[in-house]
Amino acid sequence: MRATLMYGAGDVRVAEVADPTIVEPTDAIIRVTHACVCGSDLHPYHDLEATPEGRPMGHEAIGVVEELGADVTTLSVGDTVIVPFAFSDGTCAFCRDGITTSCVHGGFFDALETGATQAERLRVPQADGTAVVIPAGTDESLMPSLLTLSDVYLTGHHAAVRGGVEAGRSVVVIGDGAVGLSAVLAAKQLGAETIILMGRHASRTDLGREFGATHVVAERGEEGIAKVLELTGGEGAHVVLEAVGHMPAYEQAYGVVRPGGTISRVGVPQYEEAPVGFASLFGKNATLTGGPATVRAYLEQALPLVLDGTIEPGRVFDRELPLDEIAEAYRLMDSREALKVLIRP
Amino acid sequence: MRATLMYGAGDVRVAEVADPTIVEPTDAIIRVTHACVCGSDLHPYHDLEATPEGRPMGHEAIGVVEELGADVTTLSVGDTVIVPFAFSDGTCAFCRDGITTSCVHGGFFDALETGATQAERLRVPQADGTAVVIPAGTDESLMPSLLTLSDVYLTGHHAAVRGGVEAGRSVVVIGDGAVGLSAVLAAKQLGAETIILMGRHASRTDLGREFGATHVVAERGEEGIAKVLELTGGEGAHVVLEAVGHMPAYEQAYGVVRPGGTISRVGVPQYEEAPVGFASLFGKNATLTGGPATVRAYLEQALPLVLDGTIEPGRVFDRELPLDEIAEAYRLMDSREALKVLIRP
Repeated sequence: MRATLMYGAGDVRVAEVADPTIVEPTDAIIRVTHACVCGSDLHPYHDLEATPEGRPMGHEAIGVVEELGADVTTLSVGDTVIVPFAFSDGTCAFCRDGITTSCVHGGFFDALETGATQAERLRVPQADGTAVVIPAGTDESLMPSLLTLSDVYLTGHHAAVRGGVEAGRSVVVIGDGAVGLSAVLAAKQLGAETIILMGRHASRTDLGREFGATHVVAERGEEGIAKVLELTGGEGAHVVLEAVGHMPAYEQAYGVVRPGGTISRVGVPQYEEAPVGFASLFGKNATLTGGPATVRAYLEQALPLVLDGTIEPGRVFDRELPLDEIAEAYRLMDSREALKVLIRP
Repeated sequence: MRATLMYGAGDVRVAEVADPTIVEPTDAIIRVTHACVCGSDLHPYHDLEATPEGRPMGHEAIGVVEELGADVTTLSVGDTVIVPFAFSDGTCAFCRDGITTSCVHGGFFDALETGATQAERLRVPQADGTAVVIPAGTDESLMPSLLTLSDVYLTGHHAAVRGGVEAGRSVVVIGDGAVGLSAVLAAKQLGAETIILMGRHASRTDLGREFGATHVVAERGEEGIAKVLELTGGEGAHVVLEAVGHMPAYEQAYGVVRPGGTISRVGVPQYEEAPVGFASLFGKNATLTGGPATVRAYLEQALPLVLDGTIEPGRVFDRELPLDEIAEAYRLMDSREALKVLIRP
């Protein structure tokens, strides 16, 4: 089959690789119909060392079940399913807590062992726990929005849920990428009153306004912090959703959070150490939360909202390309010419 | 009056200083009847630079109101009051949120401008918002427990509340000092099922068991983490209450916290930067919270529990000395010969 491999920074190609096969009786094989490029795919695109064997890429997918392991009971061949970026058994102690990304039998896609979604076919481990069936007959026009339930929209939702967004809260969203815009939409859904989107790309922040942002702050650093404080009566925001992952975004977050407020991170931190002492978090009783989105735990609740048109998170896709043009998809996203590119393998 | 001044590391003396006076119409002056030495007083005791003018010490007090500013309406001369370690107006946006330590008109005791409690008299700023009256006729035997409501018990309580301790949760308390033991008692009050106290001083951990600890782990570092994991079925604890403030305690905290769990810090961090990335907090969706205890926000609720004997947090005091022997009090606590020393000025 054709699959996307990254051979080093900036070097993404479609290659012919072996088809995935059932390895464990809990596996399923799907034919990928919809995949996409994630903002986090750009991290290796910037800094992956030379990898002669190629790193499989992609962790968001919708596909059709082609083959099932002997132990899979909830899926049928021919089902169209959403596959979250992390697989999980749905039964372990952490899955029962809703922390599906820490499943004891779980893991993440786009590794050599697990395969990846920017490809024609995918092995889905723990298929019963992982895949969610889309009702037969669902209109093709809903697929982009359904695809966002594999990662980007529910990552924004995770930020908002872990941050404790609720009616009447003031929320700052840092980052106008697809995750940041998803966080705006999720915060709106959860009843946030004031939603301040920090970003400087007008085409993106315009979509942010349509998703529910009440204010846009283009300034960064101290200026950006001052602007948010001004918009919140000098008090700061109850909740800050950090959808970038770089240190300046984190610094912005603790600068704008209200005493007693919460910073919720879903941008994968590109740092390990950060300020957490008296001068940053501790002194104002700020809470730091977030992590890899527990997409699977939210998926069944979110599905009907997409199917009935309550939310349209697929609007983050502004381009669509065939798998063979995956390199162009990465280029478009890296250069910010595209917000998020949908791929049809 | 006589007051405690610290002139440098290890150098604590009682000196004759001017009596405090009403500065703002919202002030009260109290005659301090009960004060004590806090674990956090040991930080400057270890590292205060030479301070020829002396630094006033102490931030926990019970006292009798001697004089009131013109705007104070809720107190009367002769009232016996508890004074929390931070003063607050009780009316600003942050006080209304319960984050009284971030009060816009508030501040902390033991600074030159605000005075300190290891002294015969104290100026209490924002007296209406700050001081809480102890009912007339309260038995003297309850005073040690009531004194803990100015800081140490309610700091443990703050850790437990911010950490989300509730029925059925597993809790690890790091530190067997007076705050750690208070955190055990508070966690027990909030319904924690398993309470694992990490500490190695048997006389202290014995009191911890009486306060509600179900297990004691004396091991530290990797060994201590392994022991806690063993006690929690390999899963880690829902809530970790960190009552030390040094980096090894923080490292222990993220080592033992369960995926999706919460680390709540009340030990004043003696560091600004710490691990918060994928390998420590983010990867397992751990939450980091805590800060200076919002004692005042809990005080009215805790008072009846002490008065009716439900809790006896004053058991953390194992020594009592007159003000003139304050240097000995510091020495006893620093050498760990005493857990916490009550001072009678």
